[in-house]
Amino acid sequence: MATLVLLRHGESEWNAKGLFTGWVDVSLSTTGEEEARRGGRLLLDTGVRPDVVHTSVLTRAIQTANIALGAADLLWLPVTRSWRLNERHYGALQGKDKAQTREEFGDEQFMLWRRSYDVPPPPLPDDDEYSQAGDLRYAGLPPELLPRTECLKDVVGRMLPYWYDSIVPDLAAGRTVLVVAHGNSLRALVKHLDGISDEAIAKLNIPTGIPLRYELDAGFKPVVAGGEYLDPEAAKAAAEAVANQGR
Amino acid sequence: MATLVLLRHGESEWNAKGLFTGWVDVSLSTTGEEEARRGGRLLLDTGVRPDVVHTSVLTRAIQTANIALGAADLLWLPVTRSWRLNERHYGALQGKDKAQTREEFGDEQFMLWRRSYDVPPPPLPDDDEYSQAGDLRYAGLPPELLPRTECLKDVVGRMLPYWYDSIVPDLAAGRTVLVVAHGNSLRALVKHLDGISDEAIAKLNIPTGIPLRYELDAGFKPVVAGGEYLDPEAAKAAAEAVANQGR
Repeated sequence: MATLVLLRHGESEWNAKGLFTGWVDVSLSTTGEEEARRGGRLLLDTGVRPDVVHTSVLTRAIQTANIALGAADLLWLPVTRSWRLNERHYGALQGKDKAQTREEFGDEQFMLWRRSYDVPPPPLPDDDEYSQAGDLRYAGLPPELLPRTECLKDVVGRMLPYWYDSIVPDLAAGRTVLVVAHGNSLRALVKHLDGISDEAIAKLNIPTGIPLRYELDAGFKPVVAGGEYLDPEAAKAAAEAVANQGR
Repeated sequence: MATLVLLRHGESEWNAKGLFTGWVDVSLSTTGEEEARRGGRLLLDTGVRPDVVHTSVLTRAIQTANIALGAADLLWLPVTRSWRLNERHYGALQGKDKAQTREEFGDEQFMLWRRSYDVPPPPLPDDDEYSQAGDLRYAGLPPELLPRTECLKDVVGRMLPYWYDSIVPDLAAGRTVLVVAHGNSLRALVKHLDGISDEAIAKLNIPTGIPLRYELDAGFKPVVAGGEYLDPEAAKAAAEAVANQGR
C-alpha cells in the first residue's frame, strides 16, 4: 500500500485580483502563504510524513511547498519539479479579468472555457506580454511541447507521463509522496486516479491548502474513492467557495 | 569552461547566540534571511544564472537557497540535497557556548578544535539532546556513516564523493552550478579546488551570503585561484569579521 498526498497552492496575487493566471508566474498572496502554513501544520498534526515531494515549476506551487514543508519541519525532503505539473495554460485568457470575460463572452462561453473537458480558449500569441515563449525555465522544451493554450484533456495528456515515470516509481519504492500543484493539474490527476468521467470532472473542485491523502493499492488505484482530506470540514466549506468563483 | 557558484548561509539563530551548531538544525535569524536576499540579488545584478542547485539537508542552508532563489526569480531551478554538504559535525561541542568553551578549555585547545585540520572534538553521545542519531533525515544512512564528531579532514572525506558523483557531472554537462552550504563544507570544497595545504586552510574564512564564483577548466580546477566574490568589497570586510569570532 502506498500513500499519495495532494496539496493545491493557496491564494495567489492574481487569484486575489480575479485574473486568469494559468502559466503566468505570480506569487502567493499573504492569504496564500497562511494557507500553505496551515497545510504544513495539518501534515504535522495528523502524522502524515511525506518522504519525497514533487512540484510544478511555477513559483506559487514552489512557495506553497517550501512554506508547508517549513511548517512541518521537512524542508530537507528531496524535491523534484516538472512543467508537467503546471496549472492549465489558459491561452488568450491569461491576464484577463474573470468577471469581465464572463460579461464580454457570456455565461455559456465562459463556463465552456472554464469547465468543459475538451474546449481550450484561443491560443496565446508568443509575443503577448503573458506568453511563456521566452521563459528560461522552458528553454529546454522542444517548441512543440510548450502549450499556447490547454483544455483539461490536454492537461491530463501532458501530466500522465510524469505520473507514470516519476511519481509511480516513488510510490512503488514505498515512499509517501507529496505533490504540490494546481487546481487543474490536480483535477487531472484525481480524474485519472478515481476514474472520473469527462462530464463528471466538471463539477469536481479541489480546495486550496488542505492536504488530500490517497491510500493506493498495488495497481496504484485509490482504496477509498476520492481520498480523504486531512481537514474534511474545512475542505467541504472551501470546495463550495471555489465553485462560486467568478459569480 | 564550467561555472561553479558557492554560497554560505547567513547568520542562524545559534550564530547570533554564539553557540556551536554543527549538525543541530537551527533556522536563519532575521539577519541571515536578509543576507540570503542580498546573495540572490547579487546573482541577479551580476547576471550569474545557475542552472541547478545543490544544498545540504540542514534547514539554514535550504532557507538560504530558497530565499536567494526567490530574490533571483529562480525558485523553479532543479535542486538536489545531500548530508555530504552539511556543516562539520561539532561533536560534544554542539549546543555549547563558544566563549564559555574558550574559557573552560583555554585558547590553545579551543583553536585546535576550531581550526586544526585533523583534531576532532570528543564525540557526541547518541543520547545527547543535540545528537542527530534519531533524526529522520538520516534514517537511510548506515550507522557507520553518521558522524558523532568531525574535524575538517573528515568533512573533506565525506564531501568529496558528492563533489565527484553529483556536482562534477552537472558541470561536465555545461550547467552553471550553485552550491548552498556551510562554512566548513565550503572550506573543504575550496581546499580541494584550490589545492590549499592542511596548514593554510586554517586561515581561510568564507564570508556569509556573498556568492563566490569559480570558472573551472576542463579538469574542473579554478582558472583564477580563490575564485571571485560577486561583491569583493563586502567579502573582504566579512571575512575579517568571521576570523574574529569567539574573541
